[in-house]
Amino acid sequence: MIKRILFIMMDQLRWDYLSCYGHPSLQTPNIDALAARGVRFDRAYTQGTSCGNARASIYTGRHPRSHGATWNDIPFELNQLTLADYLAPLGVQTTLLGKTHMRADHDGLARLGIDPDAELGRHLANTGFEHGERDDGLHPSGPDGRYQAVEPRYNEYLRAKGFGGANPWQEWANSAEGENGEILNGFFMRHAGRPARIPAEYSESAYMTDRAIEFVDRAGDGAWCLHLSYIKPHWPYIAPAPYHDYYSAADVVPVKRSLAQDRDDHPVYRAFAGMRWGQVWRREGARETVIPAYMGLVRQLDDEIGRLIGHLRARGLLDETLIAITADHGDYLGDHWLGEKDLFHDASARVPLIVVDPRPQADASRGSVVDRLVGTIDLLPTFIEAVGGQAPAHRLEGASLMPLLHGQQAVSWRDTIFSECDYVRMPVRRLLERGFGDARLTMAFDGRFKFVHCLGFAPMLFDLHEDPDEFHDFGRDPGRRAVIDDMKDRMLDWAAGLRNRTAMTDEGLAATVGRSARRGILIGTWDESEAPS
Amino acid sequence: MIKRILFIMMDQLRWDYLSCYGHPSLQTPNIDALAARGVRFDRAYTQGTSCGNARASIYTGRHPRSHGATWNDIPFELNQLTLADYLAPLGVQTTLLGKTHMRADHDGLARLGIDPDAELGRHLANTGFEHGERDDGLHPSGPDGRYQAVEPRYNEYLRAKGFGGANPWQEWANSAEGENGEILNGFFMRHAGRPARIPAEYSESAYMTDRAIEFVDRAGDGAWCLHLSYIKPHWPYIAPAPYHDYYSAADVVPVKRSLAQDRDDHPVYRAFAGMRWGQVWRREGARETVIPAYMGLVRQLDDEIGRLIGHLRARGLLDETLIAITADHGDYLGDHWLGEKDLFHDASARVPLIVVDPRPQADASRGSVVDRLVGTIDLLPTFIEAVGGQAPAHRLEGASLMPLLHGQQAVSWRDTIFSECDYVRMPVRRLLERGFGDARLTMAFDGRFKFVHCLGFAPMLFDLHEDPDEFHDFGRDPGRRAVIDDMKDRMLDWAAGLRNRTAMTDEGLAATVGRSARRGILIGTWDESEAPS
Repeated sequence: MIKRILFIMMDQLRWDYLSCYGHPSLQTPNIDALAARGVRFDRAYTQGTSCGNARASIYTGRHPRSHGATWNDIPFELNQLTLADYLAPLGVQTTLLGKTHMRADHDGLARLGIDPDAELGRHLANTGFEHGERDDGLHPSGPDGRYQAVEPRYNEYLRAKGFGGANPWQEWANSAEGENGEILNGFFMRHAGRPARIPAEYSESAYMTDRAIEFVDRAGDGAWCLHLSYIKPHWPYIAPAPYHDYYSAADVVPVKRSLAQDRDDHPVYRAFAGMRWGQVWRREGARETVIPAYMGLVRQLDDEIGRLIGHLRARGLLDETLIAITADHGDYLGDHWLGEKDLFHDASARVPLIVVDPRPQADASRGSVVDRLVGTIDLLPTFIEAVGGQAPAHRLEGASLMPLLHGQQAVSWRDTIFSECDYVRMPVRRLLERGFGDARLTMAFDGRFKFVHCLGFAPMLFDLHEDPDEFHDFGRDPGRRAVIDDMKDRMLDWAAGLRNRTAMTDEGLAATVGRSARRGILIGTWDESEAPS
Repeated sequence: MIKRILFIMMDQLRWDYLSCYGHPSLQTPNIDALAARGVRFDRAYTQGTSCGNARASIYTGRHPRSHGATWNDIPFELNQLTLADYLAPLGVQTTLLGKTHMRADHDGLARLGIDPDAELGRHLANTGFEHGERDDGLHPSGPDGRYQAVEPRYNEYLRAKGFGGANPWQEWANSAEGENGEILNGFFMRHAGRPARIPAEYSESAYMTDRAIEFVDRAGDGAWCLHLSYIKPHWPYIAPAPYHDYYSAADVVPVKRSLAQDRDDHPVYRAFAGMRWGQVWRREGARETVIPAYMGLVRQLDDEIGRLIGHLRARGLLDETLIAITADHGDYLGDHWLGEKDLFHDASARVPLIVVDPRPQADASRGSVVDRLVGTIDLLPTFIEAVGGQAPAHRLEGASLMPLLHGQQAVSWRDTIFSECDYVRMPVRRLLERGFGDARLTMAFDGRFKFVHCLGFAPMLFDLHEDPDEFHDFGRDPGRRAVIDDMKDRMLDWAAGLRNRTAMTDEGLAATVGRSARRGILIGTWDESEAPS
């Protein structure tokens, strides 16, 4: 029996920066141990390639096209139910520790007369999570003041530990020190090789793990879902000692980019590659400076996850705890001449996904690798099923992973997975001369072909059999027309089948079948002989 | 200046059953007079081919795929704003008289703790309309009791006029009498040639017109939007005297169906054609019996609309009143071997649409016919602009008709119009072995080609240049592949550009551009030299 769900998110963690996913120099023994106890999904994709739309898709179990929170800091509306809403009626309260990147729909609250400070308002404004500690992990200040109006509790914590000032997050946790003691802002990638100004035990990953352990202790033997949402290895790329020094340039895997790709003139690709966060990776030594810090942050996360799992084990809680660990999206790190995420090469859209089901039904699959096309959208139906509920088919667009966790290889499964990007808030929107509603990219991937519909532009197409590195965009190649047509058909079907009829359950519909005629609605009847009696 | 909007809906009125649209024997002088004073749109399409999704699209200004009220009696969620919501802040209160066919989202109200009987709850439960009289026009009883739990006020009215009984709507207004005084249920099409058991002045069309005149008188010189939503010529096909006898079999236009079409084996077409309301029109004499009654109901509506317009004229209100008149969808009446609506032949998906703008700017276009592809979804942005507002582009998917009303022929306009059908609640769903979420049909029409995406089946394609009667489905014809591919591309683009980011305005987004960097978010910066100052 599953009484608890531990749902761990990592932020901007590439699928291939874990040793169980094959990274040759980065060791992640604790996450690997989870993969050995559970199922490692080898072809998992995010449904949105930015923090906000990826997470909203996980919480709502719906694609961005359906939930509407299409990028960071864009709210979904109050009618969207979330993970916490679905689990609550099953007796499982969901607690958040860390990042959601969701913004409340204040206009919607105002329209419906709901006080955002009252219980319902707080619930709705906080993605349905009732308890815990939200921390989106980005708290810098600049010439125009604070990025986020509200200070994180983490700043209080740092001050209590002796790291004071106006913004300890910025000045200590995300800064380094220069030769002469000057403070070096961790946002500047040049400083990535230096240690953060705080010891590892006070860094954000450790802090959130402490909070998780406190939560576990407080919860005792009760049922819960803990959404532990780490804010690393997302930038600023600055790791505390000793993690800043675990890896060196020699540990950095070769970049995946080709000269031919650099000549690709697809306007969307060119616009994204031209952004500052793409260009910076062309700088000599950028990868060798930054990637070891990124790897160090991942390694630290692995240690922290190990500490938390160890605590659960020590308390005897593992046997009834389903554990899922994933990321919202990857990080190009200079691959494909790109930085950040947003587009759909594997470096960005593919994510690690490991699920441990402790029950005997899952024994046969332990340590196995499943290569079905799965999405982070599948987590919510999995969680609902794990605690004995039934996923509402009129709302949820993912599929429960349970058959795959239980080794049912014969289960019928999707043949295409979809992901989306709305670049409405990115500078590329104006470069590409797109309107606010027309900055849309949609990926369809069938395991071999990755097709990207670019509203207003030619599509992209990658053939991961012939070109596993995704260097060649065949989207404008007339020779690939049959494949492109097939992928378009899949996308048309997907779009038509999204779950938009959300205010009426399937059960509600089924209950009304045949009712009208027996209440006098006699459409198309010629005479009395055809009436129901 | 527009101070008032009179928005008249007719229910199930085919585009070609008005004399101004070319009907050879049905005379509609009052509606024709509106066309002479305004613009008649000759290629107007509904966005949904059932009563519910068509109306929800008009009220929300969004396609069914976006508002989710995909068929009759399926609610949209509370986050969907409506016509009344958009006009209220502009100082225009919207009053409903007649049919909406919307059901309240009671689950949503309960979840948000909104009392459905309090002011906000009533507002939300009534599609945003605050006042007036809702009457969906179908109040029969059957072996299992009343179709609608709540009795219409019209029943009270009939009783007061001396037409009593348990259900005067059924027993008087929608019944005829046999040779021996027996009551003949108007649902049975066999009786369509007989008069209803009430005089025309007490019939539903007259009753609602009386209510509209009362409203106009009560409102005096104030601003208003009146949504007068007639429930005729929708079945039951039974007209009061003398309208039952205005037309005869000689006035019925020839049926549009071919023997070749009857052999079309497209599974979706076959399933719809096989339904009772398709089959009934194969009966000898069905069209000759029923269509004169349908025409009589239209003629009566025309008289009633004339009475209302005459009243507005007499009160001197016409000069500041924008008038729009349309229908939710058509009625096959046996064309294409089909009954009812639902599919996308012109008999079903094409609607009449006439708009009268009284202002001098529209003088040049008076009496003109516009053949741009327009949709009923364009009404809401038109109304908003008419009373001085600006249509919110992040929500509304239609375009204001104002440039076309003002003779701006050079305006750039859409090249494709879309319409949808969700047959989830129809018996064909099980016949076609589709799930509750997968019973979707989507039309794209570019003025020549009408393409229908049928989820799970081959598409349909009609070529209205070569085959204006839409007898030949080319959807499986390899020779039409280029056209089909082009139409699929249009549909893919349309689906990707639908307005799902509804909780953030374009203006809200524009205001945040460039803000992050000046608040310390320095993505992709290498060193201090790149920071904003």
